Parts: sequence; structure tokens; C-alpha cells
Amino acid sequence: MLFNVIQSKLQQGIQFVQKAVSVRNTMPILTGIYLEAVKDKGLHLIANDLEIGIEYWVEADIINEGALVLPASQFTNIIRELPDAEIKAEGDLEHFQLKINCLNSEFTLKGYQADEFPQLPAIKTVYNLNLTAADFKDMIDEVKFSTSTDQTQPALTGGLLYIDAEGINLVTTNTYRLAYRKFPRENIIEENISVILPGKTLNELSHLIQEEGEIEIFISENYVLFKFSGITLISRLIEGGFPNYRQVIPDQCNSEIKVDRNELLKAVKRVSLIASLDSNVISIMVKEDQIQINSGESDYGNAHESLEIELKGSEQKIDIDASYLIDVLRVLSQDIIRIELIGPLYPMTVKKEDSDDYIYLIMPIRPGA
Amino acid sequence: MLFNVIQSKLQQGIQFVQKAVSVRNTMPILTGIYLEAVKDKGLHLIANDLEIGIEYWVEADIINEGALVLPASQFTNIIRELPDAEIKAEGDLEHFQLKINCLNSEFTLKGYQADEFPQLPAIKTVYNLNLTAADFKDMIDEVKFSTSTDQTQPALTGGLLYIDAEGINLVTTNTYRLAYRKFPRENIIEENISVILPGKTLNELSHLIQEEGEIEIFISENYVLFKFSGITLISRLIEGGFPNYRQVIPDQCNSEIKVDRNELLKAVKRVSLIASLDSNVISIMVKEDQIQINSGESDYGNAHESLEIELKGSEQKIDIDASYLIDVLRVLSQDIIRIELIGPLYPMTVKKEDSDDYIYLIMPIRPGA
Repeated sequence: MLFNVIQSKLQQGIQFVQKAVSVRNTMPILTGIYLEAVKDKGLHLIANDLEIGIEYWVEADIINEGALVLPASQFTNIIRELPDAEIKAEGDLEHFQLKINCLNSEFTLKGYQADEFPQLPAIKTVYNLNLTAADFKDMIDEVKFSTSTDQTQPALTGGLLYIDAEGINLVTTNTYRLAYRKFPRENIIEENISVILPGKTLNELSHLIQEEGEIEIFISENYVLFKFSGITLISRLIEGGFPNYRQVIPDQCNSEIKVDRNELLKAVKRVSLIASLDSNVISIMVKEDQIQINSGESDYGNAHESLEIELKGSEQKIDIDASYLIDVLRVLSQDIIRIELIGPLYPMTVKKEDSDDYIYLIMPIRPGA
Repeated sequence: MLFNVIQSKLQQGIQFVQKAVSVRNTMPILTGIYLEAVKDKGLHLIANDLEIGIEYWVEADIINEGALVLPASQFTNIIRELPDAEIKAEGDLEHFQLKINCLNSEFTLKGYQADEFPQLPAIKTVYNLNLTAADFKDMIDEVKFSTSTDQTQPALTGGLLYIDAEGINLVTTNTYRLAYRKFPRENIIEENISVILPGKTLNELSHLIQEEGEIEIFISENYVLFKFSGITLISRLIEGGFPNYRQVIPDQCNSEIKVDRNELLKAVKRVSLIASLDSNVISIMVKEDQIQINSGESDYGNAHESLEIELKGSEQKIDIDASYLIDVLRVLSQDIIRIELIGPLYPMTVKKEDSDDYIYLIMPIRPGA
């Protein structure tokens, strides 16, 4: 095993795959990165924590083929600290170690035997689709923050990917709030697809999708595979049923306001400085030309904010958890957003100014609860 | 108590004093900031954790005088999140609370009675000196990282400020390494001054000294007071004896090298990536035209680096803790530094290229220890 590779290219490849390196020590080899030198193809990097696997090919000059597994943390740190110059690497496959030379630096790093590293699962494609990577990243970013952290309900820790003839839908909920994003387009499918992607997979995809280009998605029974920018990410799917989101999304409202997103965010954050010292519940009152945001009366004091709005419909009052509203106001990028209300016992809906493709629900806190 | 103040000015004042707010809950009032509105003078802010006290006057329009203490964390967060506009504040001194109005925001913050807040100690000046604030900050920055964290030897957790007829000296040591900085100048004093400043005081001074201008230093028996940029910082002194630093600074050497500081830093950091997995001991070998830095042989592998140098004197080998060398190479700003060596059992000395005003010693690790 003998190859030459440019430091910056190897570093980039390591950055891509390291998100799938295991952080648990139960199987030490999974805390490593698999390296395989393949003639005419380059250097193949794989990390695999058995939930997510990522592979990437780094352009490299392969003189002799071979493979081994190196401890990810040391390998990453060393490559990152080397100068941006040519690295000459020589594997000693008998002792599972790699000698790395770069200008005046010489490292020997001990690792593991390559054939002990678990292979990525083969995907028997049930359905595949492709779309613009940036669009898919937008969908993910607008819902990923709304998953549950409760491990006793695994389905809610992930996001539902639902594909029907009319579009691609992504939904997350912790039952107290729900984020729904639709990407409308015609899909030619025999039957609707409904799978649950782990929350970690959503987060890693959001980190990794940077470049322009397409993303290909291959869905099988137990796994989903994403291909973009030369990166392949394979993720286990979460088993179980996802709540019926269509049932909870209101189809009409009694009041609609338009409000400056950034001003509302700042006002809610300020009220939350006081409200969060207690239960973080805020009262929202929608009046003719004003939205008022109030904390309760606490041992620390109280806070009141008001903002100008346009109201269509009746005046309203609703109590909600401030953090759920802050989350969505931070994630959206539109200057103006719509808020729809039905009454104090019904969910509050946040939408973009001119589109119903994004729907975010916040369940009310019952007065006196 | 009634006053108007510009948000950005109040925020700056809070930033200055908040370093002295107590983080412990043993005396709740010390987790607050004392505010006093004084006609024709402005708004007086004080924080005091009984080790360090900081006071600052904020320009404000005082309509009615009065004083109270507000919880620092909530007060700081609220003022920071308000828009940069005029704040109208009204104190309710019977209930120890302040009503804060700014544009469409209204906060009421409950606090404590002003006269329960401990006053800053009066300083009976034994000696005072003044110098350029930037010079004093440089002195602090070049030694503050080298204090001990061992609370059983309080004197070593601080820095010795030693003033004699020839200059001002600042010294820190944890007994395994020592940082010494001299600021040469003629001082007219009756007897030499020798006091120990707490490590926290050195850190806060380094953070607070930003602007051009002078710093005045007033030293009494138990306290030291610093005045700069309108800020007054009073610190308790540490009692006890400080090691005789003059005794350990070598007055000659057998070998002197000059080396590129940044290249040496990068090389030592890389070797430390492997060495730190063990005891972080590195071997330094100084040869005719080369300095070699080597890790030991560990379960993870090994690392070797070399750099070109100019050597005056004999070849040398010394074992040291890599982190002590990394610390000083990070702090210095000179392109080229000098390293002086005597032998494997004597300290290694790091100096600036052309000056002996800064001396940094690293004690050797005995071979086989």
C-alpha cells in the first residue's frame, strides 16, 4: 500500500466521512476510518457507525494497492495540522500501520486490519428520485429542529419522508409542535412512499450538502442512500408508525396576521429572557393593529412587547412555549411571515408570506395549565 | 430613581463591570450589579465578588437619584437584546425593582436593596505608578498563562509584581515552568515593592485593557487598584511568599539557537498529537543545522519533525512537556525566537530574538523519569 495525495484533498475527504465515525467505544474499529488505495480510482474512505455510513473517493496517485483502518481522531488531527503539500503514505499491512511523510514531518500511525471493518449494506432499490441538492437541504433545514429527543418514541426522533404523486413531503414533530415542508412536483410512482429518516441523518445531510448539483435518493426497505457531490451516505431507516400529520394541520382559521419576522424574533427573545426563568410560557394577544407578547408575573419581574401588524379576522389570545416560536423564526429567512389562529385551544400556525408549502404548528398551553 | 440612558452606553458599562460579578450563590446580592443614579455624574455601576471589584460611570441623564441592585444575568441579557435607542428607567426603591422602557419593550426587573451591597474597600495607597496601558497588558499576556492551578499553594496561582529602582517585573510559575517579563524604567522608590496579584485579576485586566491611554496602579497592603479608560478595578492581593525567581533563571548557556516561531509551533503541535496520547513528553534534539522534535514510541505510533536552525554552541538533547512549549510559542508574536540550552538536566530557556526582557523557563523531564 503506497500512495501520494495532496493534503487539502485528503483533509476534505476525511471531513466528509468523519460524521459517520462512531463515538462509542463498544466496537473500537468503528471509531476508525477505512482507507483503501485502488489503482486508477484513488483513495477510498469509509466511516460507518452502523446507523450511518459515509463513503468518498479522494483523488490520489496509487502506486501499490492495499487497505487498512486508522483511528479517526488521531488521523484527522494529524492530516489537518500538516502543511498543504504532497503527502507520501506507505502502509505496513502486516502491522496495520501507515507511515505518513509530508515535507519535514513523519508520522507512523497504528490502526486495525481492513477486513474487520463492517461493509456498508447493499441497497436493493425500491424507489429512487433525484432533485436539486439545495432544495433538499432547504426542506431538511426547515424541519430538522422540530424532532423529539424522547428515545422511547423512536419514530418521533426522526423525520417522515412521504412521497406521493404530487410531491415530496418532510415532517417532524415532538407532539407539542410540528414542522411540515412540501416540495411540489409530479412523481410517477406505483404506490406512495413513507419512510422515517433518523434525526442524525437529517443533521448530517444538512451539514454535508454544500455544493450545487443534484442529489440522488435510493430508498429500500430498511435503508436509504444519498448520492451528492461525490459523497455517498447510507442511513438506516427508523421502524414504526409516524403520527398522521394531515389530521392535525388545520384547514381553516379565524384570524391571520402578517408580521416582520426579525422584529417578532427579537421581541419574543426578549420576553423569553424573563419567561424562561419560569416555564417559558408567553401570552400572545392579537389586536386590531398590534401583536402583544407578555411574560407571566414571576419572582424576577415581567416583560411586555408590542409590534405593529395587519390583522384579518377576529382578535385572539393564545399561550405557547416561547422556545417553539423562537426556533421557527430563527430558521425561516423570509422578511414577512403569516401567523394563523383559530382560538386559545387550537394550534397556532406559522407560514411563509405567500406560500402554503411550509406549515409549522405550535400546540397551545391551556390557560391555567 | 429616574434616568434616561442610551442602550449601547449602558451595555458597554455592564460589560466592563460584569467580570467582577460573583458566580457563587453563597451571597445572592453579589450575583447582582449595583446601580446608582447620581445627578450631574451619571449612572454608577459596581460589581464585587469580594476578590475583585469593578466600578464604571455611564453617561446618563439623571432626573431623580436613587440606587438598587439588579440580578446581573437577567439585567445583562435584557439590556443586550434591546435596540440601540434611549432607555427610560424608573426605580421603585420600596420594592427594589426597575422598570425599563425602550421603544416598544417594557421590562420590570426585581432586585435587591442597595445598602446591602458591600462597598468596595478604601485603598490606603502605599505606592502608585502609572504606565502605558498597552505595555502593561503586554506584560500580563506574556506571563498570565503560566500560573499554577493548585489551590494548596495560593501564591503560585497568582503573579508576582516586583518593582525596584530599575523596572517593573511580573513573574508567574507553577514550579515546572516560569514566565518572567521585565519592563525597564527608572522608578523612584524608598523600598522595593513585592505583591502577588491573583491569576483571575491578571486575566480580567487583560480582557478589559483595550484602549490607548495610561493605567494608574495604586498598591496598598492588602489591595491593588487599577484605573484605566474610566474603569476602576480593585483586587485583593494574595498573601504568602513567592519563589525566588532570580535563583532559577540561568545566567549562561552552552547552546543558543534561533528558530522560526510559527514553524516550530506547528511542528511541536503535530508531534504533540501523538505525544499527548501518552504523557505529552517530547524529545528535542539540537544539531548543527537542525532541530528535531520526536514523540516517544506509543501504542498509537510515533511522530518526528525537523526544522532548520542556526546553532551557536554544542549539540543538545532535552525532554520536556510539549504543552509548556506550545503555550509560549502561541503567546509570543515575534517571527524569530531564541532557545538557550545548558544540558539535559537544566531548564530550557525561550527568549525573544533581540531582547532579554522576557524569559520563559521549561524544566526538563529527567530521561527515564
